[in-house]
Amino acid sequence: MIKIIGQNNSILNRFIYEIRCADIQKDSMRFRRNLERISEIFAYEISKELQYERAQAQTPLGIAEMFLPADGVVIASILRAGLPMHNGFLNFFDGAENAFISAYRKYSKDGSFKIQFEHLSCPNITDKVLIIVDPMLASGASMVLAYNALMERGEPKYTHIASIIASKEGVEYTMKNLPNKSITLWLGAIDDEMTAQSYIVPGLGDAGDLAYGGK
Amino acid sequence: MIKIIGQNNSILNRFIYEIRCADIQKDSMRFRRNLERISEIFAYEISKELQYERAQAQTPLGIAEMFLPADGVVIASILRAGLPMHNGFLNFFDGAENAFISAYRKYSKDGSFKIQFEHLSCPNITDKVLIIVDPMLASGASMVLAYNALMERGEPKYTHIASIIASKEGVEYTMKNLPNKSITLWLGAIDDEMTAQSYIVPGLGDAGDLAYGGK
Amino acid sequence: MIKIIGQNNSILNRFIYEIRCADIQKDSMRFRRNLERISEIFAYEISKELQYERAQAQTPLGIAEMFLPADGVVIASILRAGLPMHNGFLNFFDGAENAFISAYRKYSKDGSFKIQFEHLSCPNITDKVLIIVDPMLASGASMVLAYNALMERGEPKYTHIASIIASKEGVEYTMKNLPNKSITLWLGAIDDEMTAQSYIVPGLGDAGDLAYGGK
Amino acid sequence: MIKIIGQNNSILNRFIYEIRCADIQKDSMRFRRNLERISEIFAYEISKELQYERAQAQTPLGIAEMFLPADGVVIASILRAGLPMHNGFLNFFDGAENAFISAYRKYSKDGSFKIQFEHLSCPNITDKVLIIVDPMLASGASMVLAYNALMERGEPKYTHIASIIASKEGVEYTMKNLPNKSITLWLGAIDDEMTAQSYIVPGLGDAGDLAYGGK
Repeated sequence: MIKIIGQNNSILNRFIYEIRCADIQKDSMRFRRNLERISEIFAYEISKELQYERAQAQTPLGIAEMFLPADGVVIASILRAGLPMHNGFLNFFDGAENAFISAYRKYSKDGSFKIQFEHLSCPNITDKVLIIVDPMLASGASMVLAYNALMERGEPKYTHIASIIASKEGVEYTMKNLPNKSITLWLGAIDDEMTAQSYIVPGLGDAGDLAYGGK
Repeated sequence: MIKIIGQNNSILNRFIYEIRCADIQKDSMRFRRNLERISEIFAYEISKELQYERAQAQTPLGIAEMFLPADGVVIASILRAGLPMHNGFLNFFDGAENAFISAYRKYSKDGSFKIQFEHLSCPNITDKVLIIVDPMLASGASMVLAYNALMERGEPKYTHIASIIASKEGVEYTMKNLPNKSITLWLGAIDDEMTAQSYIVPGLGDAGDLAYGGK
Repeated sequence: MIKIIGQNNSILNRFIYEIRCADIQKDSMRFRRNLERISEIFAYEISKELQYERAQAQTPLGIAEMFLPADGVVIASILRAGLPMHNGFLNFFDGAENAFISAYRKYSKDGSFKIQFEHLSCPNITDKVLIIVDPMLASGASMVLAYNALMERGEPKYTHIASIIASKEGVEYTMKNLPNKSITLWLGAIDDEMTAQSYIVPGLGDAGDLAYGGK
Repeated sequence: MIKIIGQNNSILNRFIYEIRCADIQKDSMRFRRNLERISEIFAYEISKELQYERAQAQTPLGIAEMFLPADGVVIASILRAGLPMHNGFLNFFDGAENAFISAYRKYSKDGSFKIQFEHLSCPNITDKVLIIVDPMLASGASMVLAYNALMERGEPKYTHIASIIASKEGVEYTMKNLPNKSITLWLGAIDDEMTAQSYIVPGLGDAGDLAYGGK
């Protein structure tokens, strides 16, 4: 399933606007803060899909009946661009478990590249709700590889993938290569094109560089 | 209009649960943080009601067409319990204008009290969207007085009132005494009862004391 | 005693630079964040003056002997410009008690003004360490009035006054009108002049307006 | 050079106390927040060692002469425990460049282990001030390997290493294996012992697990 949160008007689109604008991007603190704020809204929207169970809050004056999330949540981010999103998701799911994946583009002499995974720090994810975060879903290749790498740590109850800006092509590739029954793709916006170097157009440029500088 | 955000299952109710629980309340940093997180969700939900206008984001790679909030927003908080909510709303409406109102309970010898306003710091609010925040809507008396005091600074385009926990009585009093056509009341939960001292039951106790200590 | 933290080179002066610069001030979120960051550094420096007592931390692997602050701390801010500083102090003294004072300038027909206090929310401060925060110490008149108003709530063990930018005249007025033995004045910088309207020159303009908009 | 910031009484030791206490550690949000707050204080202390240059702040009312940091700063963290510290350093050095290193313990059949590096994301660091952060300096082996890996990206002007808790042995190993002339080791506390599994005693346990859960 695909849910495009930015399709409806909300303050979310102000934050997406700011991370897109070349001028506002110059303030890397605001750029990172916007990735966090966007992720807080994604976390809230995704939280609506969790399973809930009855609980009682013992207040100083009585007992309130409530419904609380019952699922174990694992937040998984793809380094390094995913880190500010990871922080934002943790702001709202503060008791979640966490996974970190590092990937890189291994370039061939002809300029083409393959996504390589180097590092995976991840708890057992069996029967948990997995949320994989990466600001850009460009070709979709790293997301699919990340998903497959994570599946070696167990079979999650359900997987949510959160990306702020996706390309049409990346959405198609992801939906084609991942099991649709147990996955929802949460997006801020879908852009039409991609450059030969797999940058989304209009997109925002390189999210990792904008958050953390060149490398 | 009344909108009860906590009626649908979401992570919001985890935060409301935590501010209600006598045990978890002992951590005043977490208490304040929860008021902030709750307010960020309220801010997001309220933002959906704003008016939007077309804008263009000039990215490093192209132009993205978007819709951004067009309304001027004024956040008004009732001191001191409203301050952590104010911070949360500002986290999402970071360019908003701001108003602060201080009120106190003036007790008579017989133990009854009247809400008195002392201080109002407020910009002109004419044609702006006003958001008045106070964590508890108990009797509703201070909210109605705050609203009336704010109206001396202009006629807002629309007013949103955000309270996390309300009493039934407080909701009725507020809806009866304020112009329903231009107001939406946003609540986390409605509790059934109120003590003789106007504390909501089960409620959470005194939000100001829990955030900032006794006075 | 007067301690000018900004006299020694540190990242503090980067934050003070940013709140001074007319260009950077346009970003009110960064302006507020800078007041917070500055206040965190002030809080750390002031914490060195507290009294400490021995404590034992029971870790999962043993016991660590440590020294922890033993004083009760009350943070008092002058509204509304003091609020972002208040937030910054609470970030570091997260278990402190809190006081809020609202003051305003009551103008006479001839354009002169008197500082009037309207609202004081304050716990008993007897034998506690009181920290009064206000970003600007211009004439010093409101600080002296705030101090005197707070003294009606008990006799603190010691009082720290924290202002980011002070005028020479304000420092002199404050030191002359407050009991030096039990007070330290913590400043970021002292500027030479003041306008007829009591704005510090070069200063930064109106801290309240820059943080929260006009009123 | 070795600088033990926790040697002098300050609020820093309250934060270190909280990350050590087995009881308080159960709140992983507070644990991460304490790593951030500790890192903000480290960042402030380290900032005093930077080089400064004269700058002019153009305020709305005049010009203020100030001294600002002139060095380019690169923050490098060792995953995953270093991430909350990385966030804290970025809170104060918000314009810094950033590096991330992932390491893991490769166990032999006999239970011994070697630190292996997998991933390095790093800008050129020549002539910049490098700050390497990792909450625990246990054996010192991963810090020395991280340092050596980073040196392949250029020769920094100076290197600061920030660890909250170190073992005596780790400090000795680090000082012996790194060039003392161009390095300062910043510590919160030095503990006496280490377990066979290289956990510091009394220490605090596994910082990565406490911040992010098991893996």
